This record gives sequence, C-alpha cells and structure tokens, in this order.
Amino acid sequence: MRLATLRDGTRDGRLSLVRSDGARLADASRIARNLQAALDDWKAVEPRLRAMEAELEAGRLATDPVELQRLQAPLPRAYEWVDGSTYLNHAKLVRRARGAEMPASFETDPLVYQGGSGVLLGPSDDILLPDPLMGLDFEGEIAVILGDVPIGTRAAQALPHVRLVALLNDVTLRNLVPPELAKGFGFFQSKPATAFAPFVVTPDELGAAWHDGRAWLQMKIWLNGHLVGDLETGPEMHFSFAQLLEHAARTRAFTAGTIIGSGTVSNADPTHGVSCLAERRTLEVLASADRQPTTPFLRAGDRVAMEVFDTQGRSLFGRIEQKVVPAA
Amino acid sequence: MRLATLRDGTRDGRLSLVRSDGARLADASRIARNLQAALDDWKAVEPRLRAMEAELEAGRLATDPVELQRLQAPLPRAYEWVDGSTYLNHAKLVRRARGAEMPASFETDPLVYQGGSGVLLGPSDDILLPDPLMGLDFEGEIAVILGDVPIGTRAAQALPHVRLVALLNDVTLRNLVPPELAKGFGFFQSKPATAFAPFVVTPDELGAAWHDGRAWLQMKIWLNGHLVGDLETGPEMHFSFAQLLEHAARTRAFTAGTIIGSGTVSNADPTHGVSCLAERRTLEVLASADRQPTTPFLRAGDRVAMEVFDTQGRSLFGRIEQKVVPAA
Repeated sequence: MRLATLRDGTRDGRLSLVRSDGARLADASRIARNLQAALDDWKAVEPRLRAMEAELEAGRLATDPVELQRLQAPLPRAYEWVDGSTYLNHAKLVRRARGAEMPASFETDPLVYQGGSGVLLGPSDDILLPDPLMGLDFEGEIAVILGDVPIGTRAAQALPHVRLVALLNDVTLRNLVPPELAKGFGFFQSKPATAFAPFVVTPDELGAAWHDGRAWLQMKIWLNGHLVGDLETGPEMHFSFAQLLEHAARTRAFTAGTIIGSGTVSNADPTHGVSCLAERRTLEVLASADRQPTTPFLRAGDRVAMEVFDTQGRSLFGRIEQKVVPAA
Repeated sequence: MRLATLRDGTRDGRLSLVRSDGARLADASRIARNLQAALDDWKAVEPRLRAMEAELEAGRLATDPVELQRLQAPLPRAYEWVDGSTYLNHAKLVRRARGAEMPASFETDPLVYQGGSGVLLGPSDDILLPDPLMGLDFEGEIAVILGDVPIGTRAAQALPHVRLVALLNDVTLRNLVPPELAKGFGFFQSKPATAFAPFVVTPDELGAAWHDGRAWLQMKIWLNGHLVGDLETGPEMHFSFAQLLEHAARTRAFTAGTIIGSGTVSNADPTHGVSCLAERRTLEVLASADRQPTTPFLRAGDRVAMEVFDTQGRSLFGRIEQKVVPAA
C-alpha cells in the first residue's frame, strides 16, 4: 500500500491512496483525514485502506493524476524526526579527509541525532538557501515511520512498530556543521527543513527487499539532470532500523508518526557515486595533490532529484525534484 | 489567560480554561478541541477564549476543580521542542568543576539543542528511571510556545510570535551526557521525556514580569518536600527568548506549537539554591577537599516539585509534582 498527502489548504493535507502504477491516486480522507490521523488509529484504519486499495486497483474509484506540485510531505509536520548515521563508509571517508580515524565505538554504538520535524518539505518544494557560504548539500536517505513505541523496546521487538517506509532528502548546511558540533550540543542551524518523496509505503510493498530491518533497494540521485549516485541501500547499512529503534527507545517512548532515518546512503565502491556532495568532495580531496575539492556545494538554481527503485524497476516512493532558491 | 489540557482518552486531551484563582477550570473544547488546534488557528481562537474567560470570571460557566492527576502536559505531543542554555552561571559552574574555562563564544552565540517532543509528561506523571546508574536529574526551566515563525525572523520581530509561557522539568540522565556529547551529535538518550506544569499562560498574565523577552519570576524547587531552589528567572537569563528565536530561525521556519526553553535556571548567588542537582553536586565538588559530591542523583521514590510565583505570590503555572519510579 502506498500513501500520499494532497495539498488542500490545511496544515496536514489530505490522505490519498496511490495506485500501483504510481500514476493516479484516490482521496482516502473518508477513512482518515490525513496521514497522522491514520497512524494515530492504524489498527482500525489499515484494513479499511487495504480494502479501498482493492477497489482502486479494480478501477472502481474516482482518481486524479499524481502531480508532484500538488503533493506535500507525507507528514507535513511530524512529532519527531530522529536521524541515524548507519552507513559507516560515509563516516570513515569524512574522517579520512581530515586525517582522523573513525572511533571503534562507531561499529557498536549507533550515532543518532534529533532533527527538526515541525516543517517538512514536499517532493517539489524549493530548498531555501539563506547564504551560499553555508555550503548547501543534499543527503539521500531511507526512513521508517513508526507506530507507538514503548520505552525500552528491544531490536528483536522493534520491526512490528514500523508502519511505513520513506525516502527523504536530509538537506544539510555543511559549513555550519563543524562550528556547531564543536559547541557540543549537536546539529541545529546546520540542518534546515528535510524534504520527502511523495509516497510512503507499507513494508510489504518492498517484498523480499525488506529484510533484516533494512530496505534493499537501488537509490538514484541526480544533480542538474546528471546522475551522481546509483547506490545500494541494503548491504552497507551497518545498523538496522531495529537497532536504531532500540537505541532511540532506551530511555523514552515514541508517539505514532515518529520518523527514523538511516543517514546518508553510502557505498564503499566509488563506482556507485554519492548520495551527498560532501562525500564526492571528500573523494576529490583524497585524490588530489593540493587536497582541494573541485565540486562546489549547491547554488541558487541547482536542481536535485532522487528516486528509489525496487528489483522490478518500479519507482517505489516517487520522485523528489527540488530547486535551490535564495531565502528571501 | 491560562489554559490547561484535561485527560479525556484522546492523544491531545481537551482544552480547558483556568479560573484566575487557579482552583477551577472550564471546558473550552467548543472553541478549540485541544491546545494544538487553538495554536493552529490562534487569531480566530484567542478572542473567543478571552470572551469565555470573562464569562468564567463572572461565574457564569460550569467548572470543575483543578486536579493535577486529571491534567496532561498542555501539549501532550508537540511538533518541536528546542531547548537553550541561557543561564551562563550554570555553564560556568559545570566547567569549573572539571577545570575547564567557558568559551568566550558562549556569551555571544546561544547554545540550543533539539529535544524529543513526541511524548511530553503531565505535571504529576511519573519520571521513569531505566537504570539508577544513569544519574537522573531534574532541571527547572521557563519556556515559550510559539505561533508560526518564518525562516530568518530576527530578534526584534520575535516576541509577537510568543503565544504562551510555560514551566517545565527538563529531565536529564547526567551520566549519559558526557559519552553522548563526546560522540558529537548532541543529547539523545540523556534527555528522556520532559514534564510540564499544568497551566500555560499568555504573556499578558505576567504583567510587568514579562519584559525584554524574559520572564522575571520566582521559581521554587522542592526535593522530597525540602526547598532546594528559590531562584530568580529574569536577571541572569543571558539570551532572551527573542534572541533564542532568532538563532533557531536562522535557517528554517517553525510551525505553531513549537516550544523554546530557557535552559536550567541558575543564579550566581548560591543562597538561591539550585534548579538541578548537577549544579548542587558541582558546588559540593568545588567546596570539598576530596572533590566529591555528597548529594546523590534521584532514586526510585524521590519526589520533585516545581512552582513559579509572580510578584503577587500567585502560582502562575500551577505545580509540577512528580515521583521517580523504575522503568518496567
């Protein structure tokens, strides 16, 4: 089952059910007015949505075309956005460029941070750039959206709490990261609003590509129409979503609609390309005599696109297609 | 105007209006079903609530007694919880105890972190202790709750975005802080669910005690019935809420219902006592020959209470009264 949020003038938008070909959608707001409401009452809502899906696939419902501009983030505002950093190749590379070793604890103790969740961007919403010197970058990530999670939930019990899987662009202001992390309190200004692909999908939509608490899919990233990343999301995700959830729930509970992210997808084999510019710049630094990157960060007018494909070549989450514009 | 959230079995509870004596409240859900709904549509809702307040004060409405156990956090789940650290005495003390200097930048560049906001505790909800070795502590803080805030909002334009003022207990697991901050991504497991006093109040309720973007009030903290803190919240708040908001909004917008906290209230004059045990332990370390604290962190069965008074001696936000219980 794939769900999307249609812009309707309300803060949370209108719940829609997406047809299996991804081309058309049907209003599902008679079942739950928006995605948060569906997650709040998932046990009752899910079977009704699945019944509606059968009607939709049988061609018995009125539908509208999927138009990216009419779609908001699946959750335009969420109660929590917890982001991990599970692709260790990314952490290793970034450290190697500055001559540092990755701490051994990174292999056993997940890195997570609390992101801002009150304003989440839709798939074609502009990325606002307050200042070109901030070093604007994208990050392609897979995420899960949870039901209610009790405090102390362990990895072995975690996966039944996963309601939906998502694709997101974790927009980052790279040049704000070092001074901000040096202050000790983690990311804040360096993490502006995150953008989401149009569709969120139930784990069964991934079929065999959902196992071991990971999504085993193909992520493609384009910058100004050029393919810069063609990555595998499964094999190098060091910690699973189940392990991330255990880590997050060690000292507190989570409410339905909480989003947990994988961190920037990264593959050790450089022929896969990158899901963020920071990594490409790091490779340039390591490869060049003068240790300078040649790829610039994003500038006004740049266009970023992301899409994730399953083994049948289906675009599972639809397409992120954003343009960079100066913040007013 | 003072508002509270009555437990009614729903996730967000029921909006209630509190009588000026703090003893009784009236159901306000015919105006907005809960506090988030009121904040979402504040311009339309506020005048209706104010008209209802006149009726309430005139004794023309049905009321119920204020019972702490029936009240949830004013926002039982919020879209963002951004916490500052504006009382520099606290930062100075903690650093002095470990022989470090406070960086000069702390006087010009606010420290803030993103807190977890999906599960917020009511005024009498238990504090769950997963493990006594985690070093459980309380922190008394003043916070503001915002309306919609555009990206790039400056301090001079910030205060009209403040809808409500609140009192909270920023529960902290002290022994998890150093290893977590050493990882570089900020607080996560070390910040379990935050607890809120029962009433949130419009800034005009503070009268002359609301100026310069700060609340100039008296905060009292009790541990197991003993007064451990009797602090002034105004004079030593180095950054105002307006400055915190400017800092937070530099690279992104905020949605209505976002909470911004002051950080642990702290006064340089030690006769004021403390709003957190960490500070008391620091003073003990600095004063003792063996540099060991004598005050233990919170244990199962301990009771923490907090209350804030205005110049007329009125308990502005009602009382936080929590007990520590082991997490199951």
